[in-house]
Amino acid sequence: MKYKIIITSGGTSERIDNVRKITNSSSGKLGCTIANQLMTQEEERIEKIYYVCSKTAVRPQNSKIEVLEIINTEDLKRTIETLLKKEKIDYIIHSMAVSDYTVDFVTTARNISDNIKGHPEKDPYDLICQNVNKLVANKISSNEEDLIIKLKRTPKIISLIKEMSPATHLIGFKLLDGVTQEELIEVATKLKEKNKCDLVVANDLSNIRKGNHLAYIVKDWHDYIPVSGKEAIANQLVSEMFRNDSL
Amino acid sequence: MKYKIIITSGGTSERIDNVRKITNSSSGKLGCTIANQLMTQEEERIEKIYYVCSKTAVRPQNSKIEVLEIINTEDLKRTIETLLKKEKIDYIIHSMAVSDYTVDFVTTARNISDNIKGHPEKDPYDLICQNVNKLVANKISSNEEDLIIKLKRTPKIISLIKEMSPATHLIGFKLLDGVTQEELIEVATKLKEKNKCDLVVANDLSNIRKGNHLAYIVKDWHDYIPVSGKEAIANQLVSEMFRNDSL
Repeated sequence: MKYKIIITSGGTSERIDNVRKITNSSSGKLGCTIANQLMTQEEERIEKIYYVCSKTAVRPQNSKIEVLEIINTEDLKRTIETLLKKEKIDYIIHSMAVSDYTVDFVTTARNISDNIKGHPEKDPYDLICQNVNKLVANKISSNEEDLIIKLKRTPKIISLIKEMSPATHLIGFKLLDGVTQEELIEVATKLKEKNKCDLVVANDLSNIRKGNHLAYIVKDWHDYIPVSGKEAIANQLVSEMFRNDSL
Repeated sequence: MKYKIIITSGGTSERIDNVRKITNSSSGKLGCTIANQLMTQEEERIEKIYYVCSKTAVRPQNSKIEVLEIINTEDLKRTIETLLKKEKIDYIIHSMAVSDYTVDFVTTARNISDNIKGHPEKDPYDLICQNVNKLVANKISSNEEDLIIKLKRTPKIISLIKEMSPATHLIGFKLLDGVTQEELIEVATKLKEKNKCDLVVANDLSNIRKGNHLAYIVKDWHDYIPVSGKEAIANQLVSEMFRNDSL
């Protein structure tokens, strides 16, 4: 039996206007290293890898790897849903840094306060969230003294995967910044349980910045493997994935 | 006499937290094309080009070109000020897409409304602008239902150049989106007068998107040259710069 695999890699970006956007800074290096490691270790068992990535992400090159480029969280959701509906996917390695928030609207502090003063009978919270005086323009003018960007939650893509395709093995990723090892493992384990991941790779950004990419491959609360460096993380992850020929 | 030139290119980005940022999508292709065109047409007259650009900008390669990488508007300001103080700069070609706004603070709609409800005697506008319940974290949690990003104006770098160095020739750039030719020329001329530019290159993003990079090299209200394509824009701009050996 040969496997079909989806790897998501890089970072999504959410549009503010035609020139401005909110981006997640992720190079896609880890996702690319995992794709290459899969091809080195397990090429004969792989039928196809869909490498779903952002425009600036590092990309692997191999005839079995098809690159699908996406921009925002909505694109990513649509792409994964389409692939899962079209064919049986055996593994999803979801290493992309996905925006938790997208732009709801752009306004100014003056617009919000005018709206609140004009409607003393209404709850300020509702007036802030349902602001009607949005700045609508292809490119927002630079004449305003300030801007207020209201962001709303994006759908949690990782939570949709097992709902859509229970048989697909799911590898989740968690990136925190400046937390203790205990906290990192705890958050990763919760992510794993909530989204029915088979494994979670947990990273701390403060280590990555220091050039020491230390990660934990988390199987359970007290069952995790520390690995250091992108090559070693990819190597260990692929070994864990194919241990006993399945997770 | 040999010239020293600064070219700014690409787009600045402003930090939201350690993984998220607001970016201006500009490839730096036009700035790079201008640098290359200067070297092709006028190499013997050029002593040095400082190419000040963002991480992802396209870069020219030439022993007379020194690349200085910057991230945000504040970096750009500091870099230009340092260069202008250090030596006589003959031309600044300011093609970089500079953020008009930077992040003041991040909060939630709930924090703002609680603050307003708790201080009925105060002006809601002041409470929105001086929000004290900021979310301060290395990486903002994804648990909030919404986020509010308050942006404030950045210093207008283009306006500082002639103040600091009146003898430096200044080439400004204006990018609008979906306006008439008349409006584009008018806005460009105003930019030119306000900042004492010698020339302004005016673009419309809607043309660039269509793959037809039409620009106007604006000298005055009724004195402008339409040029199409990055190579032709760079070519014409360099010719105009060195007409009569000075602007």
